[in-house]
Amino acid sequence: MTQEMKPETLEHLRHISTATLTTAMFKRGFRNIFMQGVRLLGRLEANMVGPATTLRYIPAREDLDHIGVFADPAHPQRRAVETAKAGHVLVMDCRGNTSVASGGEILMTRLKVRGAAGMVTDGCLRDSGPIAKMEFPTFCAGPSAPLNLIAHHAVEIDGPIGCGGVAVFPGDIIVGDCDGVVVLPAALADEVAAEAAAQEHMEAFLLTRIEAGASLRGTYPPDDATRAAYEAWKAKS
Amino acid sequence: MTQEMKPETLEHLRHISTATLTTAMFKRGFRNIFMQGVRLLGRLEANMVGPATTLRYIPAREDLDHIGVFADPAHPQRRAVETAKAGHVLVMDCRGNTSVASGGEILMTRLKVRGAAGMVTDGCLRDSGPIAKMEFPTFCAGPSAPLNLIAHHAVEIDGPIGCGGVAVFPGDIIVGDCDGVVVLPAALADEVAAEAAAQEHMEAFLLTRIEAGASLRGTYPPDDATRAAYEAWKAKS
Amino acid sequence: MTQEMKPETLEHLRHISTATLTTAMFKRGFRNIFMQGVRLLGRLEANMVGPATTLRYIPAREDLDHIGVFADPAHPQRRAVETAKAGHVLVMDCRGNTSVASGGEILMTRLKVRGAAGMVTDGCLRDSGPIAKMEFPTFCAGPSAPLNLIAHHAVEIDGPIGCGGVAVFPGDIIVGDCDGVVVLPAALADEVAAEAAAQEHMEAFLLTRIEAGASLRGTYPPDDATRAAYEAWKAKS
Amino acid sequence: MTQEMKPETLEHLRHISTATLTTAMFKRGFRNIFMQGVRLLGRLEANMVGPATTLRYIPAREDLDHIGVFADPAHPQRRAVETAKAGHVLVMDCRGNTSVASGGEILMTRLKVRGAAGMVTDGCLRDSGPIAKMEFPTFCAGPSAPLNLIAHHAVEIDGPIGCGGVAVFPGDIIVGDCDGVVVLPAALADEVAAEAAAQEHMEAFLLTRIEAGASLRGTYPPDDATRAAYEAWKAKS
Amino acid sequence: MTQEMKPETLEHLRHISTATLTTAMFKRGFRNIFMQGVRLLGRLEANMVGPATTLRYIPAREDLDHIGVFADPAHPQRRAVETAKAGHVLVMDCRGNTSVASGGEILMTRLKVRGAAGMVTDGCLRDSGPIAKMEFPTFCAGPSAPLNLIAHHAVEIDGPIGCGGVAVFPGDIIVGDCDGVVVLPAALADEVAAEAAAQEHMEAFLLTRIEAGASLRGTYPPDDATRAAYEAWKAKS
Amino acid sequence: MTQEMKPETLEHLRHISTATLTTAMFKRGFRNIFMQGVRLLGRLEANMVGPATTLRYIPAREDLDHIGVFADPAHPQRRAVETAKAGHVLVMDCRGNTSVASGGEILMTRLKVRGAAGMVTDGCLRDSGPIAKMEFPTFCAGPSAPLNLIAHHAVEIDGPIGCGGVAVFPGDIIVGDCDGVVVLPAALADEVAAEAAAQEHMEAFLLTRIEAGASLRGTYPPDDATRAAYEAWKAKS
Repeated sequence: MTQEMKPETLEHLRHISTATLTTAMFKRGFRNIFMQGVRLLGRLEANMVGPATTLRYIPAREDLDHIGVFADPAHPQRRAVETAKAGHVLVMDCRGNTSVASGGEILMTRLKVRGAAGMVTDGCLRDSGPIAKMEFPTFCAGPSAPLNLIAHHAVEIDGPIGCGGVAVFPGDIIVGDCDGVVVLPAALADEVAAEAAAQEHMEAFLLTRIEAGASLRGTYPPDDATRAAYEAWKAKS
Repeated sequence: MTQEMKPETLEHLRHISTATLTTAMFKRGFRNIFMQGVRLLGRLEANMVGPATTLRYIPAREDLDHIGVFADPAHPQRRAVETAKAGHVLVMDCRGNTSVASGGEILMTRLKVRGAAGMVTDGCLRDSGPIAKMEFPTFCAGPSAPLNLIAHHAVEIDGPIGCGGVAVFPGDIIVGDCDGVVVLPAALADEVAAEAAAQEHMEAFLLTRIEAGASLRGTYPPDDATRAAYEAWKAKS
Repeated sequence: MTQEMKPETLEHLRHISTATLTTAMFKRGFRNIFMQGVRLLGRLEANMVGPATTLRYIPAREDLDHIGVFADPAHPQRRAVETAKAGHVLVMDCRGNTSVASGGEILMTRLKVRGAAGMVTDGCLRDSGPIAKMEFPTFCAGPSAPLNLIAHHAVEIDGPIGCGGVAVFPGDIIVGDCDGVVVLPAALADEVAAEAAAQEHMEAFLLTRIEAGASLRGTYPPDDATRAAYEAWKAKS
Repeated sequence: MTQEMKPETLEHLRHISTATLTTAMFKRGFRNIFMQGVRLLGRLEANMVGPATTLRYIPAREDLDHIGVFADPAHPQRRAVETAKAGHVLVMDCRGNTSVASGGEILMTRLKVRGAAGMVTDGCLRDSGPIAKMEFPTFCAGPSAPLNLIAHHAVEIDGPIGCGGVAVFPGDIIVGDCDGVVVLPAALADEVAAEAAAQEHMEAFLLTRIEAGASLRGTYPPDDATRAAYEAWKAKS
Repeated sequence: MTQEMKPETLEHLRHISTATLTTAMFKRGFRNIFMQGVRLLGRLEANMVGPATTLRYIPAREDLDHIGVFADPAHPQRRAVETAKAGHVLVMDCRGNTSVASGGEILMTRLKVRGAAGMVTDGCLRDSGPIAKMEFPTFCAGPSAPLNLIAHHAVEIDGPIGCGGVAVFPGDIIVGDCDGVVVLPAALADEVAAEAAAQEHMEAFLLTRIEAGASLRGTYPPDDATRAAYEAWKAKS
Repeated sequence: MTQEMKPETLEHLRHISTATLTTAMFKRGFRNIFMQGVRLLGRLEANMVGPATTLRYIPAREDLDHIGVFADPAHPQRRAVETAKAGHVLVMDCRGNTSVASGGEILMTRLKVRGAAGMVTDGCLRDSGPIAKMEFPTFCAGPSAPLNLIAHHAVEIDGPIGCGGVAVFPGDIIVGDCDGVVVLPAALADEVAAEAAAQEHMEAFLLTRIEAGASLRGTYPPDDATRAAYEAWKAKS
């Protein structure tokens, strides 16, 4: 299900802001690719980037979701962690329910050891203090202590899900930075990353101009003169 | 997937309130079987009762959810309506999104003609005026005109879903009345219906006593004397 | 704790709209006397009016709030119903929690039989169909089936509470109509009722003028000429 | 600012559902023309239709919004009611604040007498009982008694506003039915009304087929055979 | 009202995560002991732990809640701060209202000087900058500047309350860490603390195994071999 | 439209907490001057202070809000940034919509270069990481990546607006600190700043007393003896 990205796409996406990506996608008619209510826990060196592996929960039912279920290694939450591929981002659909945790330190540690690129949930995380200090990108709706069995029943790995109000299909490219998380359909990732990287390169130039006192007019967006200046600058650098 | 109910269970459930059912289930440890935010549209003669057929939506994506998709008879929303069995209740998981409709008059009419027992969604319905007048039980989060493609992408029929914050598995028994909608695990339906029917029979007696001026004390809940009076009344009636 | 109202105050309040009462109270500096999120269930002949008896719930705890608690006639919910005085309105503080019911048909029937003037809760009611048809004024946040023990632990009768975001002290005068519920401090009820009744009498006259084609200017609010016309009309009628 | 509609457009719009209009607009790329959280108060014979006159409120400030302000006939709320043109719909931007009323019986009566086509607010209305019985279409977020001065400061007539999350420019065509309220840019009204009327005419035919037992497949949406049958039916009727 | 904890319980609770406590309580049937919407302000060295002293507010009323009330040393808010026992946690029931502050720097300083173990409110705090830097654990719904009199009327010290959706009885053991705040019924504190401490000890061992590359399978939860390894490790350490 | 502040008012307001300002305004009858849901992004050395320049958005419409609109230097968002006066605070009315950004790094940089005192929005900001590190005070509802055209249509500069539920008129004095943002009507700024500065000076003294072990009684609020001690301390310092 995972489509191959060009080698440079991954590298581009590590350094392109989710803001720029939403603009590039807006130009293609996509208005709903940014997860609502999902925030970075801790700090990031570079963007989190990787294809999505998905896990879906439905509301818990008291007879099904008792403490004994974790003894079964086939429990979907545990299996999702144990089978996520290196470089992938595990994305959990918690229906935006923030009353309980959808994971904790041991699961995040296992994901990190297994080489996952990060974890995203529209639910909460427990052990939020230790996780925020791990060098492993996690995005969630906030901290919460109670175990997931109180509200969540895990049902499916690698089906299509919603997370933060956005459709996520397995293999979609997930990008996270300080502003939050964007979902790129896999087939568009190469093209959008290239365009967005070019846009960011130019905006870095425009920012130096604005910092130096240039007016927005003619600079942002750039008029022909500014574009020419950028091309000259790009040629030199 | 559908478990057989005893013949009398269906009849019982047509006349037992969802209130009584939640109490019977609470005694068994179930606290979360009543859908939140889902209301009756129009009026009911008797309760809506039937096994669940499920339809799941995830958030829409602009490239996938264009007006052309309905031309495909395999589109899950249309297929769910066209394949739901007679006597079943179609239950839609709209993630509680109330910004658009998840169905309208023509689909509800087709469900009715095909013999469905009713329809439940935690999204909205369009054509709410005509639907409220149809003799077909519908429960939703309210009226809304916009077509579902703006917010919903239909993905799956007869998988486990959440609706109104409650887990719904295909074949679960769905019961709806003026207060709203309750989900009974199929395996418990016979036993719970029998117990609840007995409870309601006694409460009808208790209500006559309360109307006649009896104090709650000794009557609700009944003490031994009141229970004896009830047994005598039951024997006579 | 209940202050005596003048005999005519009760009669006035049966026919004055809560809208007019909020205006009269606004003139005295009160901005927060209308309950938010509390609606009439069913229909009203005349306003619900009476001094408040209060019942307070806190969140339920699983060990305390089991099905057995109702066997105790001293349980505060049952005692509140059984001891509310004739003519009083029972007001329940459910912290605005709408996930469960805070009462049902048997309790409402007992309140009616005991002569209560009505019932108000910022939680929900079960058996909402039958209750809506009873000739007993009830105001709530909507219908919901689950029993109160799932979310509520009753703790106190006739203490100060909040309901719908408004402070309610036992003995405060509660008035309910189609728009909702207003709380009047007992000491102000006579004065406010008299002023509001006079205001409504004049507005009835103004409405006839507006219906007859008068402009708002000079009519609403009335200028001297309109006031004189009103006085003449009042003298005649 | 008001663009002329074709004579038949007004008549079409009186009988086309807002559901059909949102679909016609979706085909043109408009996804956000249906007001969220705005409901019909009372009943409608035919749709409410008319060009928008707008009124904007900002949050109240205690020194500016005292009871004396209504003595000024130039107060924007009163002036908006007094100057709205016959056939227009007065649309109020209350920022979705439901804690107070944005109008009451006298103002609605004056609007009706002056020939307004209806009134829409994303705030609440007081005197909701009498207004629901008036033969004047009103749409609001619900009933609420407190006067608007507690939360609203009226600032502008006939500027661009938001209402129920939708942009409304003066002169936009407002259409309201059981499902709620749709806003059509004036320049599109003729074209959209014509297309939607044709669509509804065909759907009336399709509904008879569905009621007669036709499958969705081939009927909804119609295949070539069904379209031909419709054309034949249309020619006859 | 305060039950004695075993000496080691306090020490255990300083180092056990609220996550582990919710799991231990879940095993005993408690699903609702974690406060929703209540977050740590600033940083913690060790957990906040102590028996609860409670303060309850109802909605403010303009005539009662004027600036003069604080001149009265018997005002419940001031008295609660002045009488809270050393080692206790002051817990305030603000009905989750986040529009104003429920305390500020001077009150928090006084609590600290008097030896309180911390403060929890489901409302907000003002002076959030200075308080976040104090070495005094505070948990709240966020920062907010306005004084409490705008929204809160203090009514009772050491009654049962709700805070963050959880029942709190005076003397209940309050534990707060990075994830938030848990409420333990006093009678269960010793037993739960002991069990949770043992669980955390084992999880520390399991985490080292996971960090070293062990699969979840057999490790989390531990199978017999892992448990034996843990026992050996425990015996040595 | 901007009223002159006394020279010392600006200096006072840089060091007075928004908490103290809300109390001073409460004494004058103002209860709603603190923006709800608007938080500091990053850190502040001293308070943000300046007269308001306003920008108003209404909901976006797909035909009007396409990517091309920024090419027009007269676009209100760009013009607001380009024309805001030095020392002013740009305040944006985003109707509390947090689904998209209302600005980003380049616009904030331009505002800073142009000498603006800060920026406030009840929407979100993109590029939240870089902005949080800029030495330019920004207050918003949180980070969000999508461009404003998805949800916002800019319509007006320097009209009256609502922001965070508070009325803002151009020229009102905006003050922001760790707790959030307060709006002072320009005509009251001098008087309120002087009173609040005096209050804070005394509270600094009271805090030293509380830290030294003084009881709230007699200290906070101060009795005559404490006031005398404060006057003596003030005379010395």
